[in-house]
Order: sequence, then C-alpha cells, then structure tokens
Amino acid sequence: MLKVAIVGATGYTGEELIRLLVDHPKVKITSLTAKIDKPQNISEIFPRFLGKIDLQCADLENIDDVAADSQVVFLALPHRVSMKFASRFLQLGRRVIDLSADYRLKNTALYETWYKAVHTSPELVQKAVYGLPELYRTEIKKADLIANPGCYPTGIILGSAPLLNKDFIDLSEIIIDAKTGLSGAGRKAALDLHFSEITGNLKAYKINQHQHMPEISQELAKLAGESVGIVFVPHLAPLNRGILNTIYFKKSRKMGLREALDLYKDFYKDEPFIRINPAGQFPQIKEVFETNFCDIGIWTEENSDRLIVISTIDNLGKGAAGQAVQNMNIMYNFKETTGLI
Amino acid sequence: MLKVAIVGATGYTGEELIRLLVDHPKVKITSLTAKIDKPQNISEIFPRFLGKIDLQCADLENIDDVAADSQVVFLALPHRVSMKFASRFLQLGRRVIDLSADYRLKNTALYETWYKAVHTSPELVQKAVYGLPELYRTEIKKADLIANPGCYPTGIILGSAPLLNKDFIDLSEIIIDAKTGLSGAGRKAALDLHFSEITGNLKAYKINQHQHMPEISQELAKLAGESVGIVFVPHLAPLNRGILNTIYFKKSRKMGLREALDLYKDFYKDEPFIRINPAGQFPQIKEVFETNFCDIGIWTEENSDRLIVISTIDNLGKGAAGQAVQNMNIMYNFKETTGLI
Amino acid sequence: MLKVAIVGATGYTGEELIRLLVDHPKVKITSLTAKIDKPQNISEIFPRFLGKIDLQCADLENIDDVAADSQVVFLALPHRVSMKFASRFLQLGRRVIDLSADYRLKNTALYETWYKAVHTSPELVQKAVYGLPELYRTEIKKADLIANPGCYPTGIILGSAPLLNKDFIDLSEIIIDAKTGLSGAGRKAALDLHFSEITGNLKAYKINQHQHMPEISQELAKLAGESVGIVFVPHLAPLNRGILNTIYFKKSRKMGLREALDLYKDFYKDEPFIRINPAGQFPQIKEVFETNFCDIGIWTEENSDRLIVISTIDNLGKGAAGQAVQNMNIMYNFKETTGLI
Amino acid sequence: MLKVAIVGATGYTGEELIRLLVDHPKVKITSLTAKIDKPQNISEIFPRFLGKIDLQCADLENIDDVAADSQVVFLALPHRVSMKFASRFLQLGRRVIDLSADYRLKNTALYETWYKAVHTSPELVQKAVYGLPELYRTEIKKADLIANPGCYPTGIILGSAPLLNKDFIDLSEIIIDAKTGLSGAGRKAALDLHFSEITGNLKAYKINQHQHMPEISQELAKLAGESVGIVFVPHLAPLNRGILNTIYFKKSRKMGLREALDLYKDFYKDEPFIRINPAGQFPQIKEVFETNFCDIGIWTEENSDRLIVISTIDNLGKGAAGQAVQNMNIMYNFKETTGLI
Repeated sequence: MLKVAIVGATGYTGEELIRLLVDHPKVKITSLTAKIDKPQNISEIFPRFLGKIDLQCADLENIDDVAADSQVVFLALPHRVSMKFASRFLQLGRRVIDLSADYRLKNTALYETWYKAVHTSPELVQKAVYGLPELYRTEIKKADLIANPGCYPTGIILGSAPLLNKDFIDLSEIIIDAKTGLSGAGRKAALDLHFSEITGNLKAYKINQHQHMPEISQELAKLAGESVGIVFVPHLAPLNRGILNTIYFKKSRKMGLREALDLYKDFYKDEPFIRINPAGQFPQIKEVFETNFCDIGIWTEENSDRLIVISTIDNLGKGAAGQAVQNMNIMYNFKETTGLI
Repeated sequence: MLKVAIVGATGYTGEELIRLLVDHPKVKITSLTAKIDKPQNISEIFPRFLGKIDLQCADLENIDDVAADSQVVFLALPHRVSMKFASRFLQLGRRVIDLSADYRLKNTALYETWYKAVHTSPELVQKAVYGLPELYRTEIKKADLIANPGCYPTGIILGSAPLLNKDFIDLSEIIIDAKTGLSGAGRKAALDLHFSEITGNLKAYKINQHQHMPEISQELAKLAGESVGIVFVPHLAPLNRGILNTIYFKKSRKMGLREALDLYKDFYKDEPFIRINPAGQFPQIKEVFETNFCDIGIWTEENSDRLIVISTIDNLGKGAAGQAVQNMNIMYNFKETTGLI
Repeated sequence: MLKVAIVGATGYTGEELIRLLVDHPKVKITSLTAKIDKPQNISEIFPRFLGKIDLQCADLENIDDVAADSQVVFLALPHRVSMKFASRFLQLGRRVIDLSADYRLKNTALYETWYKAVHTSPELVQKAVYGLPELYRTEIKKADLIANPGCYPTGIILGSAPLLNKDFIDLSEIIIDAKTGLSGAGRKAALDLHFSEITGNLKAYKINQHQHMPEISQELAKLAGESVGIVFVPHLAPLNRGILNTIYFKKSRKMGLREALDLYKDFYKDEPFIRINPAGQFPQIKEVFETNFCDIGIWTEENSDRLIVISTIDNLGKGAAGQAVQNMNIMYNFKETTGLI
Repeated sequence: MLKVAIVGATGYTGEELIRLLVDHPKVKITSLTAKIDKPQNISEIFPRFLGKIDLQCADLENIDDVAADSQVVFLALPHRVSMKFASRFLQLGRRVIDLSADYRLKNTALYETWYKAVHTSPELVQKAVYGLPELYRTEIKKADLIANPGCYPTGIILGSAPLLNKDFIDLSEIIIDAKTGLSGAGRKAALDLHFSEITGNLKAYKINQHQHMPEISQELAKLAGESVGIVFVPHLAPLNRGILNTIYFKKSRKMGLREALDLYKDFYKDEPFIRINPAGQFPQIKEVFETNFCDIGIWTEENSDRLIVISTIDNLGKGAAGQAVQNMNIMYNFKETTGLI
C-alpha cells in the first residue's frame, strides 16, 4: 500500500482527498495535518468520516515526521503557503502533488504579479509538471512535483484543447463565461459566503481579474503554439459543487457540428474521464457531481461563425482532488481510474 | 379607483400581478380568471393572499362579464392563448396589457416561425405598443394594447440600449450569456422542474434557439438603426426569481470605463427604475429581488476592445408583472412608480 | 412625519427595518448607525436601497446626535449590547423599541444565567413592555420602552395562547419542534454559516438550551396562570427566512378539531396579522415570506389525546422588524397595518 | 459475478441502485426495465452513467426475459405495482428484493386500508422478510423475498430499537417529528414539486396520515412486545436527499445520558452502518449524504423525564437502495459493506 500524507486536510479540497483516498484500494492515508490549534481526530472535524478513518489531524509542525510516515504528499494548501513546504518534502525524497497555484505558472514574474507574493522556490517551477493527464500524461508519470491545475483552468483547457489552432478559430478572442459553486471559495468564515447572501443570488466577480487567467492563457497558448486572447467572467451560482463553462469561439473557417464533434471525440478517444455529449445535448453540473469526469457539449451550425463549447466538472473532483488522485495513479502505475470510477 | 381584471391569475405572473395590484393605491382588482376546473377563492390557490384579497377566481368563460367588471385587462396567459382574447377585449373598449409574446414581434411571419402557430389577429400587431417605458413611454401613454416585453429581452435591451451605435460597438456580434431562475419556466408540472433535478444543478438550454431571440434582435436593431447579430445562450440556475445577463460587446472605437458609465447614466438619467452601478461594482440578482429595478454594471478598460455589460432584473418584476404595472401607471397618468417602490 | 433612528442598521434585522420604514407613509428615517469602521452610504452596504434612501450610516459614537435627529429609536443590536444604549435614549426622552433580548425577561437573574452577563439596567426591565401586540396592545400604546419579542417566542406564543389553560391541555409538557432559516443566525462571518455547510443539510442545535427558552416559558406561564413545562428543539433548515413551529400538546379533555379552530378564530378574531388555516390545511413558510403574518394550522381528532399546532412566521418580519414596526404603529396611533400590508 | 436485474430503473431509487451496483465488485447489472415508451440506453435517461454502464432500459413486457438474464431482481416500483410482479419472479426461482411497501405489513387488512388497494398475493406477505439487517440479519440470509423497509421507518426504527421496553419509556406516546428531502417524493412531474414551490419553503404534510405509520407501529410493537402509540408529523424541507427524525420519548424511569448512550452503543456494537454520536453531538443530514449510514444522537438529562433521539439517514441510501444492496450482500454471503463503504 502506498503511504500518503495530506497536508491541509481541513479544507474542502483536503476533505475530498480523504473521501477519495480512504476508499482507494492501493493506498493508505498515514498522515493528516493542517493549520489547527490542537490535534483532533479527523472524524471530529468531519463527522462523515466516523467509522471510515480513525486518524489524528495535527498541526504541521514537523515536516520530517510527515515525510517519515509517507511516500507521496498532497499539499492542499492556500496559494503562497504551499511553496513554503514543497521544496522540503522534495529534499526529503518525497513526491509532491501540489493543489495550490504555486507551481503552475512557468513565468514567475507573472506569478508574482497575480498572486502578489515573491516566489521562494522559482527553481522548482521549471521542474514541476502541470498535472493535466489528458495533455501531459507522460511527464506526469515520472514527475516528482505535480502542479495540479486550477478548477477553472481544468474545464476550460479541456473544453478548448482540440480547437486551439488558428486554422479552426480566431485565437485572439476566446470568451469564457464561467459559473461556479461555493465550495470553490474555500472552507472559511466570510460574510459574503453566508448562506443568506448566496441562496437566491447570482453574481459575476473578478471580471477579467481572476488569478486563474494567466494559467488559462499559458496553457491555451502552449496548445495553440502562439499567444491567445481571453475574456474571462466568472460567476458565483447558489450551489455547493461544480463549474460550468460556456466558451464562445469565433471560427476562422467553416466547420459544422459533425466535424466539431468528431474532432473532440477523436482528440479524447482514449480518455476515461472525458465525455463528449451527442449532438443537441449539453452538459449539466449534476451529471459530474462528485466525479472525476469532464463533460463537453458543442453548439455550432455550418453557416454560423460561432462555435460554443460547454464544459462542466466538479470543482473538487476533476477540478482538484479527483485530478490529484488521477495524477497519483499515473505516477505509481495504478490503473488510472482506480478509486475514481 | 381603476378597475382591473387579471386573466390567467393562477400562474406565477398572475400571482405577482395580484401581489402588486392588491397594494396599489389607485386600483381595485375586480376580476380574476384562469383555466380552472371550478371557481375557487384566490386565497385557496395562493394562501399568501388570505386576509389581503377575497375574490373568486373563475374559469374564463364569459369575456363580456370580465369586461363589464373592468377598465383594463391584464392577460397573463401563455403564448398563442393570449391572441384568442385580446381582440375581444379591445372590441369591448377595454385597454389590454398583454404579458404574452403574441403582439411583440412586428413581423408576424417571424412570430409564426418561432412560436409555431398561425397568428389570428395580425392587424393588432401593428397597433400594439412594445411596453418598455424607458424607450416607448410616449406611445404607451395612449396605447390600447400593450405588448409587455419578455423577461430576457427586458434586461438585455435595457443593458444594451445606450451602446447600440456602430460608432461604439460592432453590431454584428453581441454575445449574451443569460442566467435565469426557475419561475421563468412557469407554474406547471414537469419532471425537469422537480426540485431534485434543479438544486445543485446548472445548465444551458435552447442555445441560439430561444423564442426570445427575434424579440431581442427586433428591438436592438430598431435602436441601432440597422440589423444586429446576436448569440444567445440562456442558462437555468437553481434560484426562484431573477435574471442576470452578461453581455459581451466588441468596441468599434476606444472607450474608457468613465465614458461608458457616463453614457449610460446620461441615457437613463430620468429613469426611476434603472440603476447604474458605480465603477468596479456589479449587479447581483438579490439586489433586484421582488422589485421593478434593472441594475446595470459595466466593465471595460481603455486599451481593451471588449466592453462587458451585466444587467439584472427580477423576471417576474421588471421582466413581467412589475413592468406591466409600470405600463398601467403610464397609461392612466398615475405617478410611474406608484405601487412599485 | 415621525423621525426614526435605527441603531444597528447593518444586520439583517436592521436591513429589514430599513426596507419596511423607507416605504412607510408616516415616518422618515433620519439616522442610521452601526458598528462600522468609517461612515458609508447605506446603499453601498445594501445596494438594494440605491434609489430608495440616500443616507450615511455612521458609527454610533454620539448618542446625543442620534437622539437629536429622532423621536423613536429602534435598537437592532446584539443581546448584551442593547442595554448599554437603551437607558441613555430614554433619559434623553426618546421612545425605544429594543429588538434584542435585554428587556424581555422580567427575572433578571434568569437573564443573567441564560445570557451570561450582568444586567446593567435592571430598573428598566420592569418598565419595559413585551411587544407582542396581540397580547399587550394597551400597554404598548403608552410604553416608552418596548422589548420586542424573539423570533421563536413570537410564533410559539401566538400558536399556543388560546390553549393555555389546564382545562384544555396538560401544561407540564409542551413539546416544540422548530425549524428556522439562516438569517436568524445574524449577518456575520462564520464557518458554520457557509453556504456549502448549509445547502443540502439540516440539523438540530441547542437542544433544550436555546436562550429563547426562558422567554417562551415566561410568556406561556403568564398566559396559563401557572408554570408550564416545555421541551424545545430548534433546527436549522436550508432557507434564508422563516420559522415553522410544530407544537405538540396533550389534551386534558376531549376537544375536536372544530372546537379547537373556533377557539383560535375567536381568540384572534380582530387581529389583522393572525391567519387561522381552515381544517385540513397547514401553514407553509413561503406564505408568510417577507410579511408580518403569523399563520396557524391545527391538527386533532376527537378521540386522540394529542393536539398539534403548526405556526409559521417570517423571522425577520413578525419575528423581528415587522413586529417592531407594528409596535411603533400602535405607539403613535397609526393604523396598525400601515406599511406592513 | 451475480447477475442482477433492476425493475423500475428510471426512478430515483432505480437510479441510486444503478449508481451503487455499477461499482459493486461482485455483481453485474444484466437487465434494466421500467415503464417506458421505447427502449433507451440508460445513459440517455441518466447522462451521469455515460461511460459507466452501457445497457438498454426497456419496458417491462416479458418477465421471463428479465428472469432469464438475472439471479436476483430488485423491484424499485411504486406501491401497488410491485405485487403484480413479485410472485412471478419468485415462481421462476428468482430471489426478489422489493423496495415498495407491498410486503412490509404483515396485516394485509391494514395494508389494504392504508394503501387503498386489494392485496393480490397475501400468501407471500408471510414469507417476506422485513429487510432491516440490524434486526433481521439471520432471516434475510435465507430469504427469497425481502420487503425492503420504507425510508421513514428505517431511521425511526433504528433510532428507537434499543429503548423499546416499557421499563425504559412510556410506550403509549412516541412523538416523531420528521424532515425529509424531495427525492422521497419520487421522480415525477407535479406542481407541488416545482423548484419554485420548494426553495425557501418548509411545510408539514400528511399529519398522522402518512402511509408509513402502520409500518412504524408494526415494527416498534414487535420490538416492544406490545402495542405502541405514535404521533408522526413528516415535513418537507428544501433539500434533495436525506431524512432527519427528531423522536421525543417519555422515560418511565430515571436514565442519564451516559446510560442511554451505552445502551445504544451496546445494542449496535457490531453494526458497520450505525454510528452513535458522542455526548453533546447530534447528527446532520450532510454527514450521511449518499451513504448507507444511520447516525444517531441522544439528548437527555438525569432529572428530565424526556429523552430525545435524533436519527438521520439518506432516504435513497440506507432508506432505500443502500439498504437493498446491504440485504443482497447478506443474501449472497458477500461482506456486508461491499460496494457501500
């Protein structure tokens, strides 16, 4: 059994990692840590785990102890906090799957601008592999440090990848209208996350200012082979889990729905977690709830110059913990779907 | 007191008309009818009205009786049903405010295509005034037949009007990503409206096929003075009331945020129900809940070629019953905000 | 116009007071204060009020200034905070409607036990009138200090009052199972109020330990003329506003449904805000949403020794701000329903 | 691999059976049938199953075909429909797990009164085993026909069983206040299940008239060894899945919290799906969401004559499909938790 540690076990991402890993037939959770006043059994923090796992969650004081207990470490920490720990675990010979944004942007200057912090381990940025298996499976296999993708970027990149060619679309203007549930905001006390502020409400936020923008741009550009222009408007919808992205492309040549669907089906033909909806059917958040799937639907017409892609994921599943487990499965040569389907 | 009849009193729009009119100081509801098996007190159908109004709701069998009781008639009926009744009430000398789509499209051929029905009173279509007070107040004043705008069109037209000039924007591609609550689907039994299908879910529907498209195009074109191209993707979000539209314009010349905000503020400077958000602030559905307001927020930057407008209304308020009452206030020279603020 | 001040304007109760008073035809809001870092226009804090009221909300530093601006003062403050201010406003000759619990319990020792604080103005407790108009209308008329009832007590007392006679029921065991929405928890940042913790969830809390228990007991005992025994289990349900109480009485003599309904109808026969449901119909939270109504339904059978009452109110309406406005209407000889229906 | 058929695959219970069985390592779903116009792939009906199971769902025309394909048959049918099919499958030598109410009540007269139908296979009623493993594990092992318990009864019986002794409690008055989510109402079109009718709402229904009452009484009486008196008020809460029961017992002798907790812990000491909350902690619906757990919390005090039990289950999990799978595991000697934890 692979021994895994979860650092940052008390957030929503940490909780989902526990939920997935506790039933994973090839691993054993051996260490749970978090920023916490005094050690508590994880089932006191999350009563849902009563009878499923019996382990103390302690404050992360001694990295060596955590490393001693584990072979692979999941960092489910806030941005800017992860980079304090990743290098230490790597030095101690542990493989690290980092769910924060700290190692996703290859351009550290860009990181420092968007995340308003000095990067303390820029040398690791280049070593880190962007953990999107559908694109970087080979690199993930041998990586020591995985930069697990952000929730918005995951659904947007997967929903765009097959089209990112200037022969197909105008790369200068990709309009992304995203809708997310509240768990994406993290497990924390805040007035604007109060149930009474959210139920019956819907709003846009961080219009063209969301910190996931450079990550989306970086990855779309890499796929396109040139820079891309994106407009990105995320919205908060009154639901717990799930993201639905509506992506508006402008076609640079004629392309009918059949061709587009074939393009996507072919691109993802061996992928167990990508589902292309048949013509006329579109993804719904509830279909991917608590799964590692990314569902994709396409609208276009022969004589329209627009092609619209709708992609949906569970932000805590394929958008975070599920994808992290998928990466782990690849890194350790487990069947990729183990513990996920 | 103005005597008003509500035909179609048992739908969500009918219910909202009752809610507004029962407290309106200048009117008295004198007739409630609907498709109904046997007459019932309206407070049996909607217990919220117990102690507020004591009136039977009967099946609409005798138009003359309804006309005899009332001076103005609100038709809160489904599309295709309204046109069966509007002409009769007009012949009997009653003024009619029709909340269906039957008299909104000036091009009846277009109506027949989108609504899949033969129009039975095309002669009235030209007489009908499109009841959007911010644009057609003068005509509304003397109209006998009001075509009360659709819920999506209301927020989209109001959010677009000041910009609809080819000097400002590229009229050929206006992208509208709309999110609506469930009351817009009407008060009816349907599996896909089941609470368990909706809570925790979000989906797009009728992509570029929604019957409100020709209405939006007609009105935007009238304002622009030429035809416009729109992309329209409505989404169902898990909330009861409210619509939020995110509208993506492409600028045809430089325009900074300040100029855009001034343009809107000036355009709506005397409007009691239009609120322009200050720079950096954006509308939320809860701010217009159960009101007749349309809130509008703008995003742009000097060196961006995009301008994004977010508009929000209550679909049953400014998007239906509230706007109908506003129209009535104008038609009868009541202060326009009476019973609405 | 009566000049009113709201102290504690930024909570949910303060917001609801503004919503009601801004449209009240007999009053003018002249002062808004709260615990706040720097003065802000109230429409910056609550954008829904944009275009409805244009007033700064300042920190409550100078009580004399607030008093100078107003004739009546609403204290929408947390328990233990209200009593710091009530006596000062009274000394300055202002009438005070206190929405906290500070003057509700006639037994200050009980207050100090349940609210874990020393009472700093016990002399005012005896002067204060419990602001439940259906029971204490005469006293309210001339009161200078109103102790506005708690949200749970309001619905429970109103749902129990006609029955509180040992000839009717066993006074030693009244079982109250209450369900409330989240706005009752107050407008504050807390992890357990996070949307993701509440949606899809339901739980009991403070079983037989809720601070409203002594208030309920005091008032039920006063009505019964002897002490009563209550069991009180409040539950948090995933909704914003509203309380539904299911109250289980044990009959001490035979009483059929007809007699019970008549008893209630008679007891409340002149009350504009109490609605007794007909036989076989029961209250729903949505029927009283944003109103000042208390709806009551009754279940019993001739040969059952149980009688069950279900009462529902809007916790921010009849359970707080609505009732406070009703009290003000009585104190100033306005029609009791002004601004509320 | 055990071959299983699901009859009634298109309801919420059928959907949950598929969800559980498709990942169950010991079984293979070989037949899906339902009342359906024309055969459809199950992933067209429930897109969440795309990529997980590829099977047609056909109308149940030919029972022999279904029987030929399967060893065990789950009947996820409405009450009154199940009994039409159960006997045929049994005659063909198939074991049947019936999720309807048709074989739960040993007294068929009682069944006929509450379910308003003539029982067409009363001889099977006595053969059927009530499928609550915590009470009837031995009988389940060898049963050919399982009457899978109702959702309310499951949580109520499990929450009451250890106490059902007249030495502990007054058996004549057990008060049960239950709150359920909407999936319990079934997957069907109905106005009162419309999202807009449910969100923000909460109501009681079928007060002392719910068809689960005789089932609860039968099982509690069996445990008590004498008849019991229950009061049962179910409520609809705005959530998809889950039931929370608040059960009010009257003690017939002194019993402190410690003793009560020990009683429950001892009673369920070997049960993998029963979790007793520690003192001062109470169950929440979200802790059992999509699980087969029943969580139980207890309130009492030494000198109180009341003891309150709160039990919670997922109505589709332990309250229906999860429990059915647990029964199947027992019947086929699989580890009882297989596919469920």
